Amino acid sequence: MSLRAGIVGAAGYAGGELLRLLLAHPEVREVVAASSSLAGKPVTTAHPNLRKRTDLAFVPYEDVRGCDVLFLALPNGSQRYEEFRDRAPLVIDLSSDHRLRDPKAYEVWYGAPHPHPERLAEAVYGIPELHRERIAGARLVTGAGCNATAAILALLPLARASLIDRERPVVIECKVGSSEGGREASEDSHHPERSGVVRSFRPVGHRHTAEIEQELGCRVQLSVTSVELVRGVLATAHVPVRSVADEKVLWRAYREAYAKEPFVRIVKERTGIYRYPEPKLLAGTNFADVGFALDARGDRVVALCAIDNLVKGAAGNGVQAMNVALGLPEDAGLGFVGLHP
Amino acid sequence: MSLRAGIVGAAGYAGGELLRLLLAHPEVREVVAASSSLAGKPVTTAHPNLRKRTDLAFVPYEDVRGCDVLFLALPNGSQRYEEFRDRAPLVIDLSSDHRLRDPKAYEVWYGAPHPHPERLAEAVYGIPELHRERIAGARLVTGAGCNATAAILALLPLARASLIDRERPVVIECKVGSSEGGREASEDSHHPERSGVVRSFRPVGHRHTAEIEQELGCRVQLSVTSVELVRGVLATAHVPVRSVADEKVLWRAYREAYAKEPFVRIVKERTGIYRYPEPKLLAGTNFADVGFALDARGDRVVALCAIDNLVKGAAGNGVQAMNVALGLPEDAGLGFVGLHP
Amino acid sequence: MSLRAGIVGAAGYAGGELLRLLLAHPEVREVVAASSSLAGKPVTTAHPNLRKRTDLAFVPYEDVRGCDVLFLALPNGSQRYEEFRDRAPLVIDLSSDHRLRDPKAYEVWYGAPHPHPERLAEAVYGIPELHRERIAGARLVTGAGCNATAAILALLPLARASLIDRERPVVIECKVGSSEGGREASEDSHHPERSGVVRSFRPVGHRHTAEIEQELGCRVQLSVTSVELVRGVLATAHVPVRSVADEKVLWRAYREAYAKEPFVRIVKERTGIYRYPEPKLLAGTNFADVGFALDARGDRVVALCAIDNLVKGAAGNGVQAMNVALGLPEDAGLGFVGLHP
Amino acid sequence: MSLRAGIVGAAGYAGGELLRLLLAHPEVREVVAASSSLAGKPVTTAHPNLRKRTDLAFVPYEDVRGCDVLFLALPNGSQRYEEFRDRAPLVIDLSSDHRLRDPKAYEVWYGAPHPHPERLAEAVYGIPELHRERIAGARLVTGAGCNATAAILALLPLARASLIDRERPVVIECKVGSSEGGREASEDSHHPERSGVVRSFRPVGHRHTAEIEQELGCRVQLSVTSVELVRGVLATAHVPVRSVADEKVLWRAYREAYAKEPFVRIVKERTGIYRYPEPKLLAGTNFADVGFALDARGDRVVALCAIDNLVKGAAGNGVQAMNVALGLPEDAGLGFVGLHP
Repeated sequence: MSLRAGIVGAAGYAGGELLRLLLAHPEVREVVAASSSLAGKPVTTAHPNLRKRTDLAFVPYEDVRGCDVLFLALPNGSQRYEEFRDRAPLVIDLSSDHRLRDPKAYEVWYGAPHPHPERLAEAVYGIPELHRERIAGARLVTGAGCNATAAILALLPLARASLIDRERPVVIECKVGSSEGGREASEDSHHPERSGVVRSFRPVGHRHTAEIEQELGCRVQLSVTSVELVRGVLATAHVPVRSVADEKVLWRAYREAYAKEPFVRIVKERTGIYRYPEPKLLAGTNFADVGFALDARGDRVVALCAIDNLVKGAAGNGVQAMNVALGLPEDAGLGFVGLHP
Repeated sequence: MSLRAGIVGAAGYAGGELLRLLLAHPEVREVVAASSSLAGKPVTTAHPNLRKRTDLAFVPYEDVRGCDVLFLALPNGSQRYEEFRDRAPLVIDLSSDHRLRDPKAYEVWYGAPHPHPERLAEAVYGIPELHRERIAGARLVTGAGCNATAAILALLPLARASLIDRERPVVIECKVGSSEGGREASEDSHHPERSGVVRSFRPVGHRHTAEIEQELGCRVQLSVTSVELVRGVLATAHVPVRSVADEKVLWRAYREAYAKEPFVRIVKERTGIYRYPEPKLLAGTNFADVGFALDARGDRVVALCAIDNLVKGAAGNGVQAMNVALGLPEDAGLGFVGLHP
Repeated sequence: MSLRAGIVGAAGYAGGELLRLLLAHPEVREVVAASSSLAGKPVTTAHPNLRKRTDLAFVPYEDVRGCDVLFLALPNGSQRYEEFRDRAPLVIDLSSDHRLRDPKAYEVWYGAPHPHPERLAEAVYGIPELHRERIAGARLVTGAGCNATAAILALLPLARASLIDRERPVVIECKVGSSEGGREASEDSHHPERSGVVRSFRPVGHRHTAEIEQELGCRVQLSVTSVELVRGVLATAHVPVRSVADEKVLWRAYREAYAKEPFVRIVKERTGIYRYPEPKLLAGTNFADVGFALDARGDRVVALCAIDNLVKGAAGNGVQAMNVALGLPEDAGLGFVGLHP
Repeated sequence: MSLRAGIVGAAGYAGGELLRLLLAHPEVREVVAASSSLAGKPVTTAHPNLRKRTDLAFVPYEDVRGCDVLFLALPNGSQRYEEFRDRAPLVIDLSSDHRLRDPKAYEVWYGAPHPHPERLAEAVYGIPELHRERIAGARLVTGAGCNATAAILALLPLARASLIDRERPVVIECKVGSSEGGREASEDSHHPERSGVVRSFRPVGHRHTAEIEQELGCRVQLSVTSVELVRGVLATAHVPVRSVADEKVLWRAYREAYAKEPFVRIVKERTGIYRYPEPKLLAGTNFADVGFALDARGDRVVALCAIDNLVKGAAGNGVQAMNVALGLPEDAGLGFVGLHP
């Protein structure tokens, strides 16, 4: 294939990662990068890592036309899909505007009725590990929340194997980096105030709760804590279980769910330093590392998932979904393996 | 008063903090610092922050005699109390050797029977906020685990006010710094491997579980995650509750428990950056900052506590307990207020 | 004594450190904290570390009256001394407005003529290690730049001992933390952009050059590099020398300069980890740690000095200067010894 | 081509980067990874980032045979080239054993005579930007020190354009990350002792001095300071110059030297955050970003270069040299562009 790919909101962090991935994608011929604030400027103004790799300049939104695929990397709540839907046969919307299927849930979590509730049923929740078949050929694919992605991938095998005791909620703690907050500087993100803190960012009421509950059908209690980190999420899910005699049952569930997944690695070692999923290893990669531990008392499984919030939690997952939607090799353009140390 | 205070294991991190605090304590006349490995060397060899403030040298263990109070800052499981009990009328043992009252619990969590089970009943679990009256005049006071201290202080008001639904476990996630692992270098603590990681250090089976359950009488599921931080713990406890209509109930419980506590601060703000307890602010201080949030669904309270693991989680709490045990002003020598930013 | 101390600009980082130090100062009875933007709010709004230690609220600038000493912690270039000079018999101006004695130098480095050149001669450059006698009894004491303080204290012994080869410039590289930039958030200080960088902040043309040259009389080439750190400066000065046969000469020079200084420590060890001055150890303290190394080729001495930019580089040095000016014990209120690790 | 590449010392950090790069290299068919300590174990034991990308196991050194190219990633001073020279027609030795051409210089800087001084003349100092033509077809190529690489690439344009005043030494300060120290844990690298420090690691006497002087022919005064960073070097060189009227002269020199270099980028912007070379942007890439600034006084140029010490400072440069030596496209296998933020 020889695609023309558009990015609306290309100056943000997710936009920058889309650029990095699409510029090196073997099936992408041309990238159109649109920014309302930086139109006319080289993309390296916003993304200095791309120096010497591209001469591309940002264009205004109206110049994004004739694309085969269009990525919307706009702020949550922009609700600008109408404006862009006819610019490409496939739209991948990374915002939270189309993640929830139930308009009532949207209203509860986003504080206002959805302006186009009819669209919610159209969109496919774009985690390929969940909805690969529906993504193939879809017209509107929605990105997933980064915390939701990590939580869902941690829990999916247990949900599929019916190991979760649904009488009790699953408690999920996400530890997250500062790039989750996006590109805009704020008092919160001022380095002296953010460096080295362990900040209870959203102990209750985080919106990704709704996505997790929608996709897994279990009750969720989510907290999000900011730690010293730029990229990365570690979701630690405390899962109430019954009747889990030993870890073999869990190994089976995880292997069944993920043995064939190109981007999911089961990480669980008896020795060494990296015995469980760890996000630093994943910076820049599209991997989701998952792992688990059984509480000796038998009534809790701790399920873990680490991702890079900007890649598997945003841009990389979007490119993976594009690959699936267009029938390309699923890992095309996503080969970076990550760094150690 | 004019005390002579001894420290056994004074070259470790907790030992260093004891030195820092006791050398500036208004009621301490003399400090004896014992180290088996560094006897004869200046204490500044191990604790370079004390340069120009003391000429003290480490002495061998056998030279610790004639003290009014003796701090044992030895590794967990050393079980050397017999050797030192007669060296001072008050012994404060920071190790985990005497924290559990029930010998069976000790065996379960420490993997071997306690060598002196009869002693367990003698020791007072040394968190003054819990056992101030029993500490006064005690002969053997035991330090508390740093994660246990944070978890207990987060939960205590809810336990006292009978707000915890005891049918379900309390899930506690502690985010911790690298100094929890002590002074010895290891492959895990090698900077390139530890810097910037979010490492699921002990997802299940952490020994501090036993202390928390003992002191609060509720069932606990604890996980400990290492984050980029040297000093500090943030305990995030997900507490199952019934019948909590609004946060006023919680305010009342926290105020009742802590209004008169010199080292506990209730941190809960509507605006600003530091709306919840945050450990970076507490480095070097003996404060425990506690806070809470009520899940809008009404069935969960998130209770939070931040401490410096080496101070309120070890040395500072030990000095506070000494002050209480000897009838000194409880905050003597513990006046450092912490830094921002 | 029983002083009333005022702080103008008390909501900034240096203001916060002044508050922390003055509230615990044994000779200070009352602190007046003025902020134009936060007047009426508790000081803990800006300085959460002071929670439970003070109920003080910010007042407007006009309410700062009747003080025995007044600290101006205003931005460089505010030039508001006239407004405040009569509010107290001693003014300590932490800004750069009165650091240079030569109006021409001011114009060169600050890009505009000084509005009150006559005042420049009045002010005493307030590093007690340089001008202790002139500070005693002064009416206007000026703070010093944090990088200048570190550089000057590194070099002073060599300058006094006439060991610097004045034919060649001294090259000074300062590695600095993010709090040097002050409280205001900016694109530069946004955590994802600032965390983990090694940023050539000011490779040439840093204004502190002028202060160093003024005080030491040698030619200086200064560069400032921002590193991952909140508080701290390490100045590494590469000093051209002649005729330095061995390090004994240097030891003598440093001891002569600093043996009696309460806040300067000579740090130079053959073994161990902290063999040279290191700023992390100094967070919150008023120490300046200095050290040196002789290049085996004999033509260069590397002179080092580490400080906390907000303490010895700003507020702490200001309090030390106040103590000297008012005849108090020089170390009053400055006893915090620093943390390790 | 279809190469068989061997790595001796494949369990270390440079070895891990060689593995990462060679496993994805389009002209490499097979990689043999030898480790004395981990023979028989999967390479992912040491390099967890490679999980799911390779099933390779380490082999003992004696099994490295029949290679087209052999990388020696052994500790400096191992001097084991004799043992391996016949195992492949091209050997790339990343250690410092063959970097200096002059046996006397080797003895001065390494403290002992070189065991095979005759070999020193055979080896080509393997920075392609310096010796591209001699590397093509060479049999023994030596890696360069990471600090030396950064310093040399910063200075090369000025040296070639004869802009350096050779009467005075060039002062170079390298700020470096912890991975420079290699994989072995030590007291120095223990996270609580290394995190957040600014440590004067080698203020004088760093061995890379000799390489820089050899390659550039100017006198060098080098200092190396460890900062909070895992990967990366920023070299800041203070270059004495005469007669540099303005920056145009410098632009010309840098453009002449580097316009055609695939891995060198000139970074010098008037606005924005990343105005000068910055190593965080380069993690995992083979780029060397260079920049400069002219002191307004006209007698100093600050020349800057940032690299990833494990890539352009070790493994990546080695692969680039292999590409040159074997006539492959110089950038083959080195396409990763780096991450932001």
